[in-house]
Amino acid sequence: MNDLALGSIPIEKIEPGMTVRYSQTISDADIKAFAGISGDHNPVHVDSEYAERSRFGKRIAHGLMSAGFFSALFGTKLPGPGCVYVSQTLVFKRPVYIDDTVTAAVTVTKVDKEKGRVFFDTTCTVRGKAVITGNAEIFIPKSKS
Amino acid sequence: MNDLALGSIPIEKIEPGMTVRYSQTISDADIKAFAGISGDHNPVHVDSEYAERSRFGKRIAHGLMSAGFFSALFGTKLPGPGCVYVSQTLVFKRPVYIDDTVTAAVTVTKVDKEKGRVFFDTTCTVRGKAVITGNAEIFIPKSKS
Repeated sequence: MNDLALGSIPIEKIEPGMTVRYSQTISDADIKAFAGISGDHNPVHVDSEYAERSRFGKRIAHGLMSAGFFSALFGTKLPGPGCVYVSQTLVFKRPVYIDDTVTAAVTVTKVDKEKGRVFFDTTCTVRGKAVITGNAEIFIPKSKS
Repeated sequence: MNDLALGSIPIEKIEPGMTVRYSQTISDADIKAFAGISGDHNPVHVDSEYAERSRFGKRIAHGLMSAGFFSALFGTKLPGPGCVYVSQTLVFKRPVYIDDTVTAAVTVTKVDKEKGRVFFDTTCTVRGKAVITGNAEIFIPKSKS
């Protein structure tokens, strides 16, 4: 068995301050698909007439959709395939609207090489303002090659 | 303007110990759709040949997909439409595989009527074992009727 660190960044090369980013413009299709998968058909996400009368004024994206971009960065960029998601904290600071471009960034804050753990600051911003803040812990299994 | 507490449970009726649940059997379609929305095409989610050689032995669902069921419960059942997701912590305890039935449960732990805040324990289980644990805070805006 091989834990497939191949294609990912080995823990020896990971240092505090390293950052990777991903940006995506949120569309109606994203929101409808997320509602379908999650079962979250809260009208503030899917019903424009309801959303207009709500505190948000128009439809907003599911908060956990933007959080999915953190998962994408961990699983495909830093550390990349083979890593294990241990924990994530999320504080939802501002709403995300359709046509907003969300930029997710994960930044290494601490590396525990002995235990194979990497700790991250995780932030989503829209036009430079934080919409989600939080922290994550990632485990990198030792390669058995 | 009306914050549309209509259809949701008013904070006066929310008490510690109240629980709502949602169950969903995870399919390939869920995983592919989540990968498409989030950009998380980590091969452990989408590539069976890779996943067979990984520590998990077969493809696993994105952890944040199961977390989406908490959002669904808050936004549609307890407290229901009109509430605002403030924060969520997530600890990923075990993998979720295709054909697993995930049961999400959110249980009220504390109610701060003055500040309109409700605190929850949040858990996803598969066959009675926890796959995700965590906590959430929800804000219920005062109705302006």
